[in-house]
Amino acid sequence: MIAVVRERCPLVHAITNYVTVNDVANSILAIGASPIMSDDISDVEDIVSISQALVINIGTLNERTIRSMIAAGRKANELSIPVVLDPVGAGASGFRNSTTDKLLDAIAFTVIRGNLSEMAYIDGRVSGTKGVDSSMTEKDADPAAIAESVSERTGAVAAITGRVDTVARDGRIARISSGCAEMGRITGTGCMLSGIIGGFVGTGEDPFMATSEAIAAMGAAGLIAYEKAGNVGTGSFRVALIDALSMMDDETIRERGKLEIL
Amino acid sequence: MIAVVRERCPLVHAITNYVTVNDVANSILAIGASPIMSDDISDVEDIVSISQALVINIGTLNERTIRSMIAAGRKANELSIPVVLDPVGAGASGFRNSTTDKLLDAIAFTVIRGNLSEMAYIDGRVSGTKGVDSSMTEKDADPAAIAESVSERTGAVAAITGRVDTVARDGRIARISSGCAEMGRITGTGCMLSGIIGGFVGTGEDPFMATSEAIAAMGAAGLIAYEKAGNVGTGSFRVALIDALSMMDDETIRERGKLEIL
Amino acid sequence: MIAVVRERCPLVHAITNYVTVNDVANSILAIGASPIMSDDISDVEDIVSISQALVINIGTLNERTIRSMIAAGRKANELSIPVVLDPVGAGASGFRNSTTDKLLDAIAFTVIRGNLSEMAYIDGRVSGTKGVDSSMTEKDADPAAIAESVSERTGAVAAITGRVDTVARDGRIARISSGCAEMGRITGTGCMLSGIIGGFVGTGEDPFMATSEAIAAMGAAGLIAYEKAGNVGTGSFRVALIDALSMMDDETIRERGKLEIL
Repeated sequence: MIAVVRERCPLVHAITNYVTVNDVANSILAIGASPIMSDDISDVEDIVSISQALVINIGTLNERTIRSMIAAGRKANELSIPVVLDPVGAGASGFRNSTTDKLLDAIAFTVIRGNLSEMAYIDGRVSGTKGVDSSMTEKDADPAAIAESVSERTGAVAAITGRVDTVARDGRIARISSGCAEMGRITGTGCMLSGIIGGFVGTGEDPFMATSEAIAAMGAAGLIAYEKAGNVGTGSFRVALIDALSMMDDETIRERGKLEIL
Repeated sequence: MIAVVRERCPLVHAITNYVTVNDVANSILAIGASPIMSDDISDVEDIVSISQALVINIGTLNERTIRSMIAAGRKANELSIPVVLDPVGAGASGFRNSTTDKLLDAIAFTVIRGNLSEMAYIDGRVSGTKGVDSSMTEKDADPAAIAESVSERTGAVAAITGRVDTVARDGRIARISSGCAEMGRITGTGCMLSGIIGGFVGTGEDPFMATSEAIAAMGAAGLIAYEKAGNVGTGSFRVALIDALSMMDDETIRERGKLEIL
Repeated sequence: MIAVVRERCPLVHAITNYVTVNDVANSILAIGASPIMSDDISDVEDIVSISQALVINIGTLNERTIRSMIAAGRKANELSIPVVLDPVGAGASGFRNSTTDKLLDAIAFTVIRGNLSEMAYIDGRVSGTKGVDSSMTEKDADPAAIAESVSERTGAVAAITGRVDTVARDGRIARISSGCAEMGRITGTGCMLSGIIGGFVGTGEDPFMATSEAIAAMGAAGLIAYEKAGNVGTGSFRVALIDALSMMDDETIRERGKLEIL
């Protein structure tokens, strides 16, 4: 699959937070896709129209960019361009919750990727029944059940990432158990992954498999980076992670990505 | 002290400039605290309420984020959450000066950290007597006197960083003489330090000692990074600095931090 | 020439995109100049007034920052401070085109640097005759002819960067053939170069030679970084590129920069 990304070089339009945007752009480039960042309401429809995927990340949202996210997402829906949502911090503040709600109402997402508490918020909101706890852990909730519920109600591929990652859609479940704890000691690995998923779904391949393979690629890169720089420090680990993504191939994903289709 | 940071993992809410925000987040993570960036007026009160410290950095301020800084700072004051101010460029433009003034009027700061000319601006403003010179050097002014004056008039711990760093509060003075000139050849070491101070004061420990130890940790990291990468180039030095922060422990701070309580 | 940059340490005010702003700041520092980022309408005139160069990059523009770009550019013109334009994405969207048009109408630029399609857009706009194709390649157009035409009509030094780089002004043409393909596999090398050009023209030296030497310095750094990290990965390549810039001297530019004045 990553060979297809490198061959087709999809253009990924990202409306993303300013904390990790540079890492997102470099990750998208590292896997062989091409990033373009644009968040002004006057610009986003033109830009998404020339793109093969749109990634919406609400990490540092504000009123101005929310309008742009909705305009870009609707345009992408019109043109059948896949849209990835990263609901950073959903469950943690009223504003992030109401923005997530607005985006879910306005846009049909192809993939929704978050951590357990973000996805539990979305599940509670779309199913209207479950409570929300921003400090939810795997002891409190079953990621597979939440992913399946979110997928069923939104029509999107639902991906919950954590120690083990779960991807669900249409009764299919994938589990990815690569990656390492060091990935949580640098900022942006979640955002980078959402960007990479944008590159994989931007190929036009099946979104369930594209999302699963993208997560496996990131997990394999995390393992390789840990071997190289895990005991040097988090600055070197971050550099090694981008290095590993830029050298990633399908064989490595198969051998190190620990992807199982259940 | 850094062992306490790593154990309690305080959440640090930063409203900071977009130039160095990624380094700030990675520095906060490197010392064992947890960063969250949020700057929209609709979001900041919720976010600061779940945080253990707030860091306000005016490096790339604009009208929208100034309102958010004030709302977040007031909420933090209400909830007795410590607030760190980094008055980037105070003294260099009318807008930065008037913003610094507004923030000082609206918010009770726990720590104010700047370079000599920024702190001299604040001193001139709060004491109403001294002149301001944005190119002030240690020949022109006594950092200890300025730090004591700012601390006395604002009630905050006042930290002036430069070749040698000075921390003052309530008649106590600390001097930190670690660090290296290479730290001025990369962008963001001051911003990173303000974020790190947020992590240290977010433990709830005495702010004077927390600030002094945070500066000593950064200084020790600078020395270690210089030994490792000082003659390779500034890209490698920056990576090595984050590495050193992520490996920092109290023993290294004691041995290499060159912190004296006067 | 780079020795002059290191000696005079010009202050470079950059209004630039948030994707690559950190790399731009670190590149400006690496060559011995000093960066300051400020984009609020209330701040930019004060800041540009204390600077030796202004760099305007439209990578992630919005209505708020466009007004600031124009105010800063006009002030720079008033004070005879050199202004560099990086028209990121001109030709790719209506908003980027109209913004480029507005900036060209409002500000006299000292240097305009872009890739072939961006510069072809500007040429079509200023000459009123040529078509615009955002996917233009060197097979479709002659960079030297476009650079000469843009320079003649705007009065600026026109620099077109790509596999080979072309600089034109007043009948003079320079060609730079250093650099490497790996530079396109990380984000921001174009933005970094525009920042570096700001540092070189901020010395007050002849803008044609300053621009040509700045491009040669970046090209030499690309070659050195490729030798060091080309087969390690793009994360390491990026670090090595900043390292090479921070170690760059005039002898290396002469030996490795591959600059010819035609």
